[in-house]
Amino acid sequence: MKATDKKVALEMRGAHNAMKYCSQCGGPVTLKLPEGDDRLRYVCEACRVIHYQNPKMVVGCIAQWESEILLCRRAITPCIGKWTLPAGYLENGESVQEGARREAYEEAQAVVVELQPFALLNLSFISQIYFMFRGRLPRREFAPGPESLETRLFREQDIPWDDIAFPVIAETLKLFYSDLPGGNFSFHLKDVHQDKNLILC
Amino acid sequence: MKATDKKVALEMRGAHNAMKYCSQCGGPVTLKLPEGDDRLRYVCEACRVIHYQNPKMVVGCIAQWESEILLCRRAITPCIGKWTLPAGYLENGESVQEGARREAYEEAQAVVVELQPFALLNLSFISQIYFMFRGRLPRREFAPGPESLETRLFREQDIPWDDIAFPVIAETLKLFYSDLPGGNFSFHLKDVHQDKNLILC
Repeated sequence: MKATDKKVALEMRGAHNAMKYCSQCGGPVTLKLPEGDDRLRYVCEACRVIHYQNPKMVVGCIAQWESEILLCRRAITPCIGKWTLPAGYLENGESVQEGARREAYEEAQAVVVELQPFALLNLSFISQIYFMFRGRLPRREFAPGPESLETRLFREQDIPWDDIAFPVIAETLKLFYSDLPGGNFSFHLKDVHQDKNLILC
Repeated sequence: MKATDKKVALEMRGAHNAMKYCSQCGGPVTLKLPEGDDRLRYVCEACRVIHYQNPKMVVGCIAQWESEILLCRRAITPCIGKWTLPAGYLENGESVQEGARREAYEEAQAVVVELQPFALLNLSFISQIYFMFRGRLPRREFAPGPESLETRLFREQDIPWDDIAFPVIAETLKLFYSDLPGGNFSFHLKDVHQDKNLILC
């Protein structure tokens, strides 16, 4: 492999969020290969700090009320007007189950109980890891939060498959409805690949 | 709640990595509550960019060879000389299973196959999420990588419980040996709390 090919390969592996200045000293940063490392990192030219970047976790849940599940219609970009499961970025200091409960409350003003781990979905192409739960609504109470236009319970036959916001959400729902008939839910691990032909929203 | 109490409560929820300068424009950042948010964030005073900070994922595995499992003795801080499972930070562009396989190869020069999700452990007090697999060594081949002093297979009765590097690793091993007798491995979700009386290494 030529040196330039190697650099391109390393850059491909990095999937960096652009960074221009050091968050510690304000000096300029450069993308380079630190000694003993095999990935390009932003390194400060002034104070030599190496800035590591890592994937973000998204947590969410499928909340059941009897035989129906709760979906939210998005009020924000991307995919305004499309349906999704309540989910969002995990925050510092939170457990994954706390994050999933918070998102259900923020997006659908819904209390969700009895959370069970259901699936981890890798979205490596955007460095996101989705961790999804199954849960139960103890009361038939929900309403749109500030990020939702509408919240609604759906029976399986009414799921708006053509209007689901993201492929990862459609994939989660498919796994759920595949397990549902037997009532035998297993934990799923799945890679969701970027579909270049897909218009996302 | 007084305004100062509220600020302290919000700071507690943040668990921020200190940041002084904006990585986009080099301007000074301030910890403040953006409009419509409920968490303090670093916000650039010059370009107004909000810098979100999120938990990091650590991925690793319990690699089995017949009735033994693979441990590594750490050559690096923290906990030099203590035993651990091969595990490390998930990198951008990686799936969790790719990350776990990479860490096994880097730390123990071991190829691990048939990875099965085993446990997610929340370390909320340091904003880390551990995702651990079970796996199998197809060959009895391993050796210390640059971050290990020694790599070894252990039978259950020989596990050096008093010399395990981190509580999260001891917890993972306990869950594994609890499932092992019945051969019925389930997926575990667990919170690991900071033990203030515990000297870590």
